[in-house]
Amino acid sequence: MRAAIAAALLFATAAMAAPAPDEVLKASPASDWHRLDPAELLVMQLKTGRVVIQLAPGFAPRTVGNIRKLVQDGYFNKNAAIIRAQDNYVVQWSRDPEPPTKGGWVEFERRPSASFHALKDPDTYAPQAGFDGDFPAAGDGKSEWLVHCYGMVGAGRDLAPNTGNGAELYAVTGQAPRHLDRNITLVGRVVQGMELLSALPRGAETMGFYGKSAPHVPILFLRIAADMPAADQPRLEALTTASKSFAAYVEARRNRGGPFFIRPAGRIDVCNIPLPVRAAP
Amino acid sequence: MRAAIAAALLFATAAMAAPAPDEVLKASPASDWHRLDPAELLVMQLKTGRVVIQLAPGFAPRTVGNIRKLVQDGYFNKNAAIIRAQDNYVVQWSRDPEPPTKGGWVEFERRPSASFHALKDPDTYAPQAGFDGDFPAAGDGKSEWLVHCYGMVGAGRDLAPNTGNGAELYAVTGQAPRHLDRNITLVGRVVQGMELLSALPRGAETMGFYGKSAPHVPILFLRIAADMPAADQPRLEALTTASKSFAAYVEARRNRGGPFFIRPAGRIDVCNIPLPVRAAP
Repeated sequence: MRAAIAAALLFATAAMAAPAPDEVLKASPASDWHRLDPAELLVMQLKTGRVVIQLAPGFAPRTVGNIRKLVQDGYFNKNAAIIRAQDNYVVQWSRDPEPPTKGGWVEFERRPSASFHALKDPDTYAPQAGFDGDFPAAGDGKSEWLVHCYGMVGAGRDLAPNTGNGAELYAVTGQAPRHLDRNITLVGRVVQGMELLSALPRGAETMGFYGKSAPHVPILFLRIAADMPAADQPRLEALTTASKSFAAYVEARRNRGGPFFIRPAGRIDVCNIPLPVRAAP
Repeated sequence: MRAAIAAALLFATAAMAAPAPDEVLKASPASDWHRLDPAELLVMQLKTGRVVIQLAPGFAPRTVGNIRKLVQDGYFNKNAAIIRAQDNYVVQWSRDPEPPTKGGWVEFERRPSASFHALKDPDTYAPQAGFDGDFPAAGDGKSEWLVHCYGMVGAGRDLAPNTGNGAELYAVTGQAPRHLDRNITLVGRVVQGMELLSALPRGAETMGFYGKSAPHVPILFLRIAADMPAADQPRLEALTTASKSFAAYVEARRNRGGPFFIRPAGRIDVCNIPLPVRAAP
């Protein structure tokens, strides 16, 4: 016990020199942030507020293109609802009941990109994990794919792999279900309003579907931000993952500073690095 | 694309032979399950239902002993409430306002136990990760500790390491905050009613505290199950982590079978293996 406390004091002294993640963000220059393009933001309006999703056309061009088309064609104008909330897993939405849809794409991975930056930390699921642009990603040198971290959004599909077309989407609300990586098309991530999805009452039926026993959560509208009146568009900026500030932020999360931590972890999981997003000036 | 689909079919054929995790549980013999001891279950009654926490006296004997004492002495009979819900992190409860408490313990790790079974999968945060009895744990050969998976319960503390005494507790509701491992005393895990905590509205103040702006969530009572009338006690059983069925369950989660998955992950994170608990017969 005495030895443990002595060790604790030693660690505390070392750790206090390191800045906390929030301090790194506060100290970051404006040039390390970039505006999120309204053409790539999907706005989902609920009664409780607004959920904003950043789309990932660089990873899922066809599925994202179809989401944009469905939204702009008014597909979601009628009976769009959140139909499923499974604890420690996902919430899911679509038209309800869902009309038959045709087609879909297998956009589970792509060729490696020069914009992929791997963390030095080992990852349980992939040879490399890190970031590519505004998204958490993984790779094996031959291929690159988005990973199922908290807040990531994917296109639900049937049993056949090429049946996800974006008419039904889900957001991850629990421990990163990395077993879904490369089994389903990820199309983006929630950048605002995630707590409106994660705090929804869980569905009582199998797999968390609300079923007929509980009221579904209506979606008032789904729109591409660029199609909204300028005053209504979300104005958001994200910390650039290729910036020095982001590297410092990752290091601050890897080895927590401040007086609380007595034993910095020394390692970080890609899904324990939420990508900072804030209101643009 | 053609190659991807051919590969998908190949994987699908291989994967379909493997049982799904639920099927493994259904096929498990009763002898692979064990009753949870009511003397080690803490019952937290909310307006919305009951949360049951299995305590871990084998890992945190002094803190768990003090929780038992506080509960039995009626410490929580007055003004107990959930005071914090931070998205993708924790919910926290205590008496509100919290009276000054004295003392606390550093029960962050213990000597390695023969009952620890490591997974073969690599872990980002620890040399070994796996299970010990009914809990997720990690180790490095010299030491062993509980890990912060979804649903784990810990004793909040102040800046000094030895200030957590169980008068204030938290449950993990987000992506496993493994950086807290060995920085704080874990005292157990939620075995029933987790969704009552995870779906609570998030607090609007710093760190998700409800503050004065939002009503706190009252805790109607906190009791040790063994102290309740027999008819009111939770009757639960857990799959024994040292059993063959548990090993098969882990393998089924590591390499998902069934017609949906085209690419089994081949690896599993300790926090992606929820420990099965069900109503006892």
